[in-house]
Amino acid sequence: MVADPESPKPTVRLLSYGPDGVDEQTLDGPEQLAGKVGKKAVTWIDVDGLGDAHAIETIGKVLGLHPLALEDAVNQWQRPKVDEYPENLFVVVRMASHGERIETEQLALFIGVGFVATFQSERPGDCLDPVRKRIRVGQGRIRSEGPDYLAYAIIDAVIDNYFPVMDTFGERIEVLEDELVQGPVRNGVERIQRAKQDLLVLRRSLVPLRDAVNALVRDEARFIQPGTRLYLRDCYDHAAQLLDVVGNHRELVGGLMELHLSGVSNRMNEVMKFLTLVSTIFIPLTFIAGIYGMNFDPARSPWNMPELEWRYGYPAVMGVMALIAAATVLYFKRKGWLAPTR
Amino acid sequence: MVADPESPKPTVRLLSYGPDGVDEQTLDGPEQLAGKVGKKAVTWIDVDGLGDAHAIETIGKVLGLHPLALEDAVNQWQRPKVDEYPENLFVVVRMASHGERIETEQLALFIGVGFVATFQSERPGDCLDPVRKRIRVGQGRIRSEGPDYLAYAIIDAVIDNYFPVMDTFGERIEVLEDELVQGPVRNGVERIQRAKQDLLVLRRSLVPLRDAVNALVRDEARFIQPGTRLYLRDCYDHAAQLLDVVGNHRELVGGLMELHLSGVSNRMNEVMKFLTLVSTIFIPLTFIAGIYGMNFDPARSPWNMPELEWRYGYPAVMGVMALIAAATVLYFKRKGWLAPTR
Amino acid sequence: MVADPESPKPTVRLLSYGPDGVDEQTLDGPEQLAGKVGKKAVTWIDVDGLGDAHAIETIGKVLGLHPLALEDAVNQWQRPKVDEYPENLFVVVRMASHGERIETEQLALFIGVGFVATFQSERPGDCLDPVRKRIRVGQGRIRSEGPDYLAYAIIDAVIDNYFPVMDTFGERIEVLEDELVQGPVRNGVERIQRAKQDLLVLRRSLVPLRDAVNALVRDEARFIQPGTRLYLRDCYDHAAQLLDVVGNHRELVGGLMELHLSGVSNRMNEVMKFLTLVSTIFIPLTFIAGIYGMNFDPARSPWNMPELEWRYGYPAVMGVMALIAAATVLYFKRKGWLAPTR
Amino acid sequence: MVADPESPKPTVRLLSYGPDGVDEQTLDGPEQLAGKVGKKAVTWIDVDGLGDAHAIETIGKVLGLHPLALEDAVNQWQRPKVDEYPENLFVVVRMASHGERIETEQLALFIGVGFVATFQSERPGDCLDPVRKRIRVGQGRIRSEGPDYLAYAIIDAVIDNYFPVMDTFGERIEVLEDELVQGPVRNGVERIQRAKQDLLVLRRSLVPLRDAVNALVRDEARFIQPGTRLYLRDCYDHAAQLLDVVGNHRELVGGLMELHLSGVSNRMNEVMKFLTLVSTIFIPLTFIAGIYGMNFDPARSPWNMPELEWRYGYPAVMGVMALIAAATVLYFKRKGWLAPTR
Amino acid sequence: MVADPESPKPTVRLLSYGPDGVDEQTLDGPEQLAGKVGKKAVTWIDVDGLGDAHAIETIGKVLGLHPLALEDAVNQWQRPKVDEYPENLFVVVRMASHGERIETEQLALFIGVGFVATFQSERPGDCLDPVRKRIRVGQGRIRSEGPDYLAYAIIDAVIDNYFPVMDTFGERIEVLEDELVQGPVRNGVERIQRAKQDLLVLRRSLVPLRDAVNALVRDEARFIQPGTRLYLRDCYDHAAQLLDVVGNHRELVGGLMELHLSGVSNRMNEVMKFLTLVSTIFIPLTFIAGIYGMNFDPARSPWNMPELEWRYGYPAVMGVMALIAAATVLYFKRKGWLAPTR
Repeated sequence: MVADPESPKPTVRLLSYGPDGVDEQTLDGPEQLAGKVGKKAVTWIDVDGLGDAHAIETIGKVLGLHPLALEDAVNQWQRPKVDEYPENLFVVVRMASHGERIETEQLALFIGVGFVATFQSERPGDCLDPVRKRIRVGQGRIRSEGPDYLAYAIIDAVIDNYFPVMDTFGERIEVLEDELVQGPVRNGVERIQRAKQDLLVLRRSLVPLRDAVNALVRDEARFIQPGTRLYLRDCYDHAAQLLDVVGNHRELVGGLMELHLSGVSNRMNEVMKFLTLVSTIFIPLTFIAGIYGMNFDPARSPWNMPELEWRYGYPAVMGVMALIAAATVLYFKRKGWLAPTR
Repeated sequence: MVADPESPKPTVRLLSYGPDGVDEQTLDGPEQLAGKVGKKAVTWIDVDGLGDAHAIETIGKVLGLHPLALEDAVNQWQRPKVDEYPENLFVVVRMASHGERIETEQLALFIGVGFVATFQSERPGDCLDPVRKRIRVGQGRIRSEGPDYLAYAIIDAVIDNYFPVMDTFGERIEVLEDELVQGPVRNGVERIQRAKQDLLVLRRSLVPLRDAVNALVRDEARFIQPGTRLYLRDCYDHAAQLLDVVGNHRELVGGLMELHLSGVSNRMNEVMKFLTLVSTIFIPLTFIAGIYGMNFDPARSPWNMPELEWRYGYPAVMGVMALIAAATVLYFKRKGWLAPTR
Repeated sequence: MVADPESPKPTVRLLSYGPDGVDEQTLDGPEQLAGKVGKKAVTWIDVDGLGDAHAIETIGKVLGLHPLALEDAVNQWQRPKVDEYPENLFVVVRMASHGERIETEQLALFIGVGFVATFQSERPGDCLDPVRKRIRVGQGRIRSEGPDYLAYAIIDAVIDNYFPVMDTFGERIEVLEDELVQGPVRNGVERIQRAKQDLLVLRRSLVPLRDAVNALVRDEARFIQPGTRLYLRDCYDHAAQLLDVVGNHRELVGGLMELHLSGVSNRMNEVMKFLTLVSTIFIPLTFIAGIYGMNFDPARSPWNMPELEWRYGYPAVMGVMALIAAATVLYFKRKGWLAPTR
Repeated sequence: MVADPESPKPTVRLLSYGPDGVDEQTLDGPEQLAGKVGKKAVTWIDVDGLGDAHAIETIGKVLGLHPLALEDAVNQWQRPKVDEYPENLFVVVRMASHGERIETEQLALFIGVGFVATFQSERPGDCLDPVRKRIRVGQGRIRSEGPDYLAYAIIDAVIDNYFPVMDTFGERIEVLEDELVQGPVRNGVERIQRAKQDLLVLRRSLVPLRDAVNALVRDEARFIQPGTRLYLRDCYDHAAQLLDVVGNHRELVGGLMELHLSGVSNRMNEVMKFLTLVSTIFIPLTFIAGIYGMNFDPARSPWNMPELEWRYGYPAVMGVMALIAAATVLYFKRKGWLAPTR
Repeated sequence: MVADPESPKPTVRLLSYGPDGVDEQTLDGPEQLAGKVGKKAVTWIDVDGLGDAHAIETIGKVLGLHPLALEDAVNQWQRPKVDEYPENLFVVVRMASHGERIETEQLALFIGVGFVATFQSERPGDCLDPVRKRIRVGQGRIRSEGPDYLAYAIIDAVIDNYFPVMDTFGERIEVLEDELVQGPVRNGVERIQRAKQDLLVLRRSLVPLRDAVNALVRDEARFIQPGTRLYLRDCYDHAAQLLDVVGNHRELVGGLMELHLSGVSNRMNEVMKFLTLVSTIFIPLTFIAGIYGMNFDPARSPWNMPELEWRYGYPAVMGVMALIAAATVLYFKRKGWLAPTR
């Protein structure tokens, strides 16, 4: 097994509980784990940091985890899934967070007899802390239920954590939309692409996550009590709902691209219309000025530019030019070419 | 359980009925509910307003509703679904309305032994009033059937209410289409996007709604009598039909985008063609005028612009210019560039 | 039940037949129907016009039709479907016709013991007339088979009638394609959109129609004899084939849009190339003419435009201009900008 | 039954064989067929030409073919399918050929007890000839197997014949791609559309063909021996592989459209950049020349264009113009507008 | 059977092993294979080169391979699949490599009693070498397991080898993206098309590969032990994960096209804006200069261009021109037309 070189050394925290009370303990080394499971109804072995292959293997041996599953737990790029092994149930889920971009982190769960073991490369405090708190204060049914209910509570916390991520993302694309409605935005295409990719990241976590939860609900998995299935079904509904929102956001982001393109072409069109207006007004006028700049000699022939010698030649030409300019502007107005197209 | 802070305090209305008569009552508090169910064949507990968690929990305890389902009933962003619990059947549907935009509101139903309980955040008078009226006047079979038929009647009313929403939407996009056929429309892209999003809202309500109704028809749900399934099948057909219309409208709205883009590019093309026409007529003429504006001195050499001294120099040049302009216009006509492209 | 206000009052025609003969009769009122069914092996009750709710209800009561099904039969916007009721089988199909546009009309069938009842809002003579004729002249097996075979014959006639509709449509888009290959067409986008919508209308009728026929083939419907299933399978094949053609036409119409857009952009490009050619030829020439129109005084300095005083100044400048113009045209030719892009 | 008016009169060839030998015979009329089937282990009745309804019906009666199937065999626009009848198995496949365009021709097979009958409108020598040859020379297992193996051999030959068609098509689009990479191609859109339509023709033949072969592999069809299923599974793999290639070609052809559009817009952009370069160089220069063409009288005022009287006025203006032109070209180079965009 | 003419003559290597040891041997000819299988627990017959039909057939006869499967093994364009034959299990997979482009090579496996035979046209050293090494050094469980585990190890090695290929591809499109963000790229469309086609190649290998592995996991194939299925399930997960990445890359490449198009249109827009700026500044100025270049004679009439005789005529006109130019630039700035659109 190859450890994750970017992950710190594992810290192992135990949280044992039953209807009668709670025991918390941080182990000095993985070998101390032996004999700890089974003292209370449920023991949650919480392994943070996957940087030491030997330590992970020791934990796996003590708990009787299958080497294939353990390898998947350490490999940080698994897709969410449920694998049933003879000795325990292995579940991979992904936790989402939204910093600059949306990112997901893997959480591997083993559900065995009397214990749940979780493996993650770093401790994402906030996402599972509500579960720990519920155990400590004995809130709800969690203290009187088995490891399958603990697993449900963890998965539920992971899924519920997608909702604020989704909200942050929703605000982000709303801000972008508001900017795009004003006109073309700097780096518009890149920002829209990034939003699309973030949705892909979410989708790629959520679709198999939903399917994994569904497998837990439907399969005749030995490690899940029928009563807990009811709760997992609720998890499934939430995951399906999240996917609905992802689908919705996808369409919104697709619409942003259209808005951006329409804004760019719009500005271009306005520029071109301005060019056309200026050109078509002045080109004929310049031509007229050019005519009276010709050097045909009126002295040689009465046919040669007699206008140049008329008393009102100049004002008349200026008047004709003004008329032509006015007619052009009027033509543009009539055609509706001066109104903004957007 | 967290109450919906934007929702008013709950009002609880009872509508108990059987073949023998109807009792209507508005409760002063949720605790009055105890002992009310079972006096008549069917009791409809109609809870409007979800702003008081304690009151909702009291109602749930009296009726024996599962806490998970109750939480979903209060959470206003569920997707339509059917969940079977040991004690009752939980159904979520969404009611549509079309004001400025299309919006949907959640309606949660519990079908239990001898009662149907509905939860909604505000009272949407018109949508369920026809059902209440049918109960009061004893129209149709409703008074002689059980709670499953009442649930059917409610779901049917919800689905039927989508049809006028769809009609309003259809008129809205027809108006937009008529405008777009005339030419580019102000805020065209945004209006088309909004129509697309409204269709998404409808689709996201209707697809799971149809699936939920289908689950009611097919599943061996204990709370639905075989005779009622026949009616629910009819509901299913209506939902499927609504989705057909949504699909159709989607294509229509997609066509509007093409119409808009074609209109914008069309106007642009007309502007450019006008520019081209004006430019290509006057640019050569201005050049000719420029030639005869050169100061080569005819006095110095017989080769230097003798035209300037000809008797008919000026009219000849004017004639040539007229000919060139006419030829250009003719060329444009021949090429068909003066005809509108649309 | 609400009658269709746009439909005329119902006319009820009876066509009773068996191996021994045929009886035809037009009823004066729906109540005359009682006792008419069962005298011959098969009775076809053909109801045209749905404008009288009471009359329809009377017919329904006499024949034992379920109120839900009867309501669907009168409501003209059902999608094709098969619903089995205890007393009979209810089938909805849609008949297509191609006038200016493609339109579909609903035909509802009830298959009961000894009868087939059809409901439609107007009599579409040609589509079912071949069936009536086959019964009257005793052609084929129809007179010796039961009501299920009659139902097959009617559905087959409805489906076969889509083929000429499809042919007319095919010709229509071929005409449009031929025009578009020539260049942009007036109202091109609208005509293509209309063709797309017509295909949607066909698709929305044919997909559920095919599924309904498939349900008749596969389901263990009591009202269809095994021998008739063989014939219905043939109907199914035809419907599947029609959908293939619709899919094909869809791609063709999509191609028309590309053809149209390419034609429009092509014409625009030609216009722009013409503008560019004219501009880039004359702009430099006009500049040169402008230079020799400057009023620098050759008398003041030998450096001031001595060309003006040269003997061959004017012809030399004209020659240079001709050279520049020729070089520009050559450059355009070399670049291939004068060849049509299409 | 309506015969195909464009098809010649049927020619009926018999090819009877068994492990012991081969008999070949061309019948003078369809009625001679009686008593011919059953003398050898397998008889292949090969009917070419469908232009005589009576003859086809006679053949059908002798062989016990179902009228519905016979009608499908004569109708040349069936989609590939498998229909099981009590007396025999009816299979429709389509043979492809690539002349100017890709075309498909129908081949209908009946597999009965001791015989295979094939119907086609014209004899497509090359496609089935290898099968005939294998029978004549007794190559492989064909002479020792039953009619189901013959049917397999025929279907296999039909499917294998798609591979050279696909190769020809592949070369055709490679040629087109090479041309498009050079720049826009005459009739590019039409040629791409035609390629797309040809792929549709292939797809519409291959998808149902694959499904039909799959049905033969999986269904418990009485007329196919288990040993032959193994061979048909191989046919299925080939059909699936062909569809992969069709899918691939579809993407390639879609890419051609993008290439074409990019080429067209590219050329346009080059034209526009040339116009811009020429215009922006000469427009300011022409303006400067225009200034010094003004007729302000230097004699009247020292402020009036004193440059005209300077000794180096003309060369200085020419130098300034050259500088401006050089600066413009430099600006274009800096901006990268002179590099080709492709 | 037709040999692959482009493939070298086959080299046959044997690798026999069991818990007790390993035997390696390269055969001089295929006929030496007889009697070699069965001496150790597992024999891996590794055939490299498919250029000799007779040799392949000999190997097939010795091992009891079905001719149909053997033909598929030699034909280099099979899609991945699993075919069960009575005597053995036939699996086709494709190995990927990334040189200039992504390419795949076929590997055919037969899993029989006591042996695995692999056929490939050339020896791709690195991909299967890790498996050979594990056998030689006795690493892991491979030496104590049967042929099904060897087959798993080979398939696993093939699938794992897609990951570095994917990484190389990922870097390639990242490089392209970085270039495209800078602006239009030479041959951009072609490079994007090639990336798309490479993804298609991957997809077409991976989708059936995943399905084939899934078939091995699920089917009741006699040649796979239940214990090995657990490992194959892991293979399936990896293949599914690879397809996720392919899907992701597909979206990224689609985004590159948009980036490219946006870059091209952007550059075009900048060019056009520059043209418009230059034109609209100088066209009015040139017109004014043209006016004062007219030859109306101020001497003839006080109305004829008295400005020409004013003391400050020239500086005033120059000032007016400067004002107009400044106003135009200001107008452009106000409109935001000078800011880059990207």
